[in-house]
Amino acid sequence: MAEYVNVAVDAMGGDNAPVEIVKGAIEAVNESDHVKVFLTGQEEQINNELSKYTYNKEQVEVVNATEVIETAEPPVMAIRRKKDSSIVKALYLVKDGVCDAYVSAGSTGATLVGGQVIVGRIKGVERPPLAPLIPTEKGCALLVDCGANVDARPSHLVQFAKMGSVYMESVMGVKNPKVGIVNIGAEEEKGNALVKETFPLLKNCPDINFIGSIEARDIPSGLADVIVCEAFVGNVILKMYEGVGGTLIKKVKEGMMTTLRSKIGALLVKPALKNTLKAFDLEQYGGAPMLGLNGLVVKTHGSSKSVEIKNSVLQCITFTEQNINQKIKEKITMEEN
Amino acid sequence: MAEYVNVAVDAMGGDNAPVEIVKGAIEAVNESDHVKVFLTGQEEQINNELSKYTYNKEQVEVVNATEVIETAEPPVMAIRRKKDSSIVKALYLVKDGVCDAYVSAGSTGATLVGGQVIVGRIKGVERPPLAPLIPTEKGCALLVDCGANVDARPSHLVQFAKMGSVYMESVMGVKNPKVGIVNIGAEEEKGNALVKETFPLLKNCPDINFIGSIEARDIPSGLADVIVCEAFVGNVILKMYEGVGGTLIKKVKEGMMTTLRSKIGALLVKPALKNTLKAFDLEQYGGAPMLGLNGLVVKTHGSSKSVEIKNSVLQCITFTEQNINQKIKEKITMEEN
Repeated sequence: MAEYVNVAVDAMGGDNAPVEIVKGAIEAVNESDHVKVFLTGQEEQINNELSKYTYNKEQVEVVNATEVIETAEPPVMAIRRKKDSSIVKALYLVKDGVCDAYVSAGSTGATLVGGQVIVGRIKGVERPPLAPLIPTEKGCALLVDCGANVDARPSHLVQFAKMGSVYMESVMGVKNPKVGIVNIGAEEEKGNALVKETFPLLKNCPDINFIGSIEARDIPSGLADVIVCEAFVGNVILKMYEGVGGTLIKKVKEGMMTTLRSKIGALLVKPALKNTLKAFDLEQYGGAPMLGLNGLVVKTHGSSKSVEIKNSVLQCITFTEQNINQKIKEKITMEEN
Repeated sequence: MAEYVNVAVDAMGGDNAPVEIVKGAIEAVNESDHVKVFLTGQEEQINNELSKYTYNKEQVEVVNATEVIETAEPPVMAIRRKKDSSIVKALYLVKDGVCDAYVSAGSTGATLVGGQVIVGRIKGVERPPLAPLIPTEKGCALLVDCGANVDARPSHLVQFAKMGSVYMESVMGVKNPKVGIVNIGAEEEKGNALVKETFPLLKNCPDINFIGSIEARDIPSGLADVIVCEAFVGNVILKMYEGVGGTLIKKVKEGMMTTLRSKIGALLVKPALKNTLKAFDLEQYGGAPMLGLNGLVVKTHGSSKSVEIKNSVLQCITFTEQNINQKIKEKITMEEN
């Protein structure tokens, strides 16, 4: 068993559970013999789904959990009370060392709270951020934090920069990743109180490649590899990607349907366009890791289909094999110098 | 002279000054006989530009100003020292009651500082916000504040909501405009400290149509008419519009150029597409008004061409004729009830 990366998958989380979750887990298992998935949730339903597929039985285990945490439930209460839920059970698999990683499309709040309370923080990490990959013209960038810690302090942002750098370098293979702090102007004296306090700390940080302030308009063009901001701003950035992207693509489609001439044109451009726009689809990157925990906790979109679950599970292999948490531990401790 | 709305136009501000600024001012004058423009800046250069056009001489006046405030200059210092600059002179025209409104494509900082220091706030207004119109699927929405007041307090946001409502109702003709506060979730208990404190104040505000929290992803779809947020977040929203929009349109164009088939299609869809996307162009709406000043101060994009200057000048007519400042005064005073 030691040869596998063990991933606990919340089979009951998200809009398409358990069908798409189980499907994605099996797709991951069928794509890599380095991984074993532990599906937590209502045994009967999971086994029912599993019976549809062919796979190596050694790579899949079902862990029964009778309860489900709903998205709307207050997360702290849910984690405390629903001990037999698919989320809590999956998180304990990581805490107890049975699994290396956790993947859920369920309640973000419960995953964030449970990650901290059950899995626990790496020693020295003050606030574990949620860090999704977002598409850019040059590939992708890591957005830290996009929703875990509102009202963050400067020292938190410095740790986000360090952990994000480790992730982009070791998981995504970006050498000496460029770190930028989101600001409302490129000049050093601009910004709100948080950014003004954080800027000199990042500037004096020897173990990151800090390129200074970046304006939000420069994020999609790929100016920085690690985008540091507090959670409220990060969440707005992520949601604006979805909102502006969705509306614009809708407008493009509408525009193409206005005349007979444009309708014919639309048929001709469609295949090429589909390919290019795919590179700009947020969901292709799998889930968002929560950095700085004793284990890997990955949150995927509530609307995740099997492909996103598969990518998230496969992402856990690189993360674990690259020893990311050990590297984060080392980088965070260097802070004391 | 009393029949004109008098608009001071900074002829030296922006990337395309004075050529496009003077051109835009003349276009406004030739479109409306309700407006008179006062062009501030280097007399000789302005007259040189003016000599290119035919227009009613009674509607244009040149006010000589020998200095220019550069975009990179620290604004407080610039306003204090460059008394003979095109920006300071134009602002004094408003302060002294010669003009009703001010339009500049120059330094945002100098306009914001000068607006407060020279033109001055309406009694009772704590912080005048910068409030651009942004495109949505349903038309447009007002984003308050997008850059004037970092580290705002809850009482400021409540005033933003009131002033924004007056603007959308009286200038844009939206009956009972829907006011939303930008948040990281739709539930009332979500948000950072600022939003949590502001939410109940907005909820209990009798003279606005508060619809609660809106997530950034719902802004482009047009869920709210007045979008309330503090300046840092507002600036990120505005810049994400530009950044995601620009990158996506670039990707669409690239996608259309990948194969012979798609190139032919592109030729066919182009005219229809251009029309649809025009409705999503930030610059068509003219400038962003700074609300709550004793007079109207409008900041347009640094890259403004004549059409944006023209639209900004024409926008001043509605603003002035609709007595917006009187309405803002009344709404702000109601706060005490």
